[in-house]
Amino acid sequence: MAEVEPGPCIAIVGLGLMGGSLALALRAAGDAVGPIIGVDRDPAVVQAALARGAIAEGYAGLGAFLAGADIIVLAAPVRTIIDLVPVVGALAHPGALVLDLGSAKGEVIRAMDQLPPDLHAVGGHPMCGKETSGLAAADAQLYRDKLFILTPTARSDKAGLARAAWLAQTVGARSEVMDAARHDQLVAAVSHVPFLVAANLVHTASGWAEHDPAVWRTAASGFRDTTRLAASDTTMMLDILLTNRDCIRACLQDYVHSLSELATLVANGDAAVLAPWLAAAAESRRMWERGMNHG
Amino acid sequence: MAEVEPGPCIAIVGLGLMGGSLALALRAAGDAVGPIIGVDRDPAVVQAALARGAIAEGYAGLGAFLAGADIIVLAAPVRTIIDLVPVVGALAHPGALVLDLGSAKGEVIRAMDQLPPDLHAVGGHPMCGKETSGLAAADAQLYRDKLFILTPTARSDKAGLARAAWLAQTVGARSEVMDAARHDQLVAAVSHVPFLVAANLVHTASGWAEHDPAVWRTAASGFRDTTRLAASDTTMMLDILLTNRDCIRACLQDYVHSLSELATLVANGDAAVLAPWLAAAAESRRMWERGMNHG
Repeated sequence: MAEVEPGPCIAIVGLGLMGGSLALALRAAGDAVGPIIGVDRDPAVVQAALARGAIAEGYAGLGAFLAGADIIVLAAPVRTIIDLVPVVGALAHPGALVLDLGSAKGEVIRAMDQLPPDLHAVGGHPMCGKETSGLAAADAQLYRDKLFILTPTARSDKAGLARAAWLAQTVGARSEVMDAARHDQLVAAVSHVPFLVAANLVHTASGWAEHDPAVWRTAASGFRDTTRLAASDTTMMLDILLTNRDCIRACLQDYVHSLSELATLVANGDAAVLAPWLAAAAESRRMWERGMNHG
Repeated sequence: MAEVEPGPCIAIVGLGLMGGSLALALRAAGDAVGPIIGVDRDPAVVQAALARGAIAEGYAGLGAFLAGADIIVLAAPVRTIIDLVPVVGALAHPGALVLDLGSAKGEVIRAMDQLPPDLHAVGGHPMCGKETSGLAAADAQLYRDKLFILTPTARSDKAGLARAAWLAQTVGARSEVMDAARHDQLVAAVSHVPFLVAANLVHTASGWAEHDPAVWRTAASGFRDTTRLAASDTTMMLDILLTNRDCIRACLQDYVHSLSELATLVANGDAAVLAPWLAAAAESRRMWERGMNHG
């Protein structure tokens, strides 16, 4: 057997659903990963992560210990990530990689661009999640077979990107490098606008429920799935909405315009236009489910 | 042991997902149900239903045999149900119950009101379904623990409603009597508008995919659930939209108005209003999931 290189020491800042799941998945990778240091501002969460065996060492705040990490993962709401970047940059050792898990990348990348030149920094967005949040919902399988988007920064060289890709692969994800502007447009369409659409369905149903509370008990599996995202963590979603405003605005404008046209077709009972419109949407959705348009 | 009354003979017209599942669930009820007659305009579907043991007798069209049924269930798209009602009415024996499974009730009820006075007729809407359609997707458990709404007609007396409730209970559902106008408003909010919202998400994503096909491979579980309904059978959905236009228009108007307001909040980055708005939607959705607002 070849001699095994010691795996990198990885610090995870934020031990909620994403950070906690990452810690569990990295632990499951065995010797390929060095000690995992966990940080969370809630000491009870740090204790729970230690008790669950997700991390080897835990802290309730950032400190000099961060200089011992080869990779520092920021797993927090986007605006918290942006605040953390310079603090982490001042504590990290030269050559360390800073990677985040935020769902909107433009503003994170701009913060990372200001990091000391002797650090590596890559933006990350694993396309997975749950409508439940917190360490209790963490799952070692969360990243498995999911897309893990990596967005380059001014501090991303080949080595840094390779290390970020290694981490994604180690937790079972497939990585893809994509610039932040393109990322932010794509996720506005497939994630951020769907969240708003779901939240607005619940909001509208709540309004109708004031006239007739039977709305809630009449709602079934279609309502359940269409509105699942509405239960997402509010702080996380608020930060995403605020830091990806331009892309969301453009996409939502298209969405509202198209929905208004659709409403007119329905109101006019225009079956000749409605039927092919609905059939095309159904076909695109079925092709997507089968992976036939993934390119 | 008491002597067992022979169960009613039940004819099911339409052997797709809903009718096929109903046949399987009724078969599973054993002696409580008499012979099940299946009708579908596609002879291959009739053959498949016979082969699967879902029905005892099968026909590819309506005929005099329908006079042998005590309960006739119309399991077809809404506009087909409306066309079937008078035909079935002319063939049914006096005292038989006509029940449908359509998702919009107003126009169905108006058609049933014209049935011969010696028939019973009740509108039915089981709140279950799948985005897959056809007999192949049929499932004996589809109705289990689901709400089965019964809407009275001019041909609904106590005995007819009791028989419809018996059928719902026999397939494992819980029935609730509700007038058609109220039903149509409620399902517009929790089912028909969610369908349009989902279909429009796919439509909008398709538009973006013309610029960047990576839209499709970037879409993950949030997109999957939010858009699941978009893959629903187009004929079924078109009929629902066309026969519940007024309620859908009113609900969609509220929806679009509220979404436009939400878009403005996001565009302005108005965190002080956005945060409680999102938190309220998340809390309503979580309460719904826990059954805490079902009343």
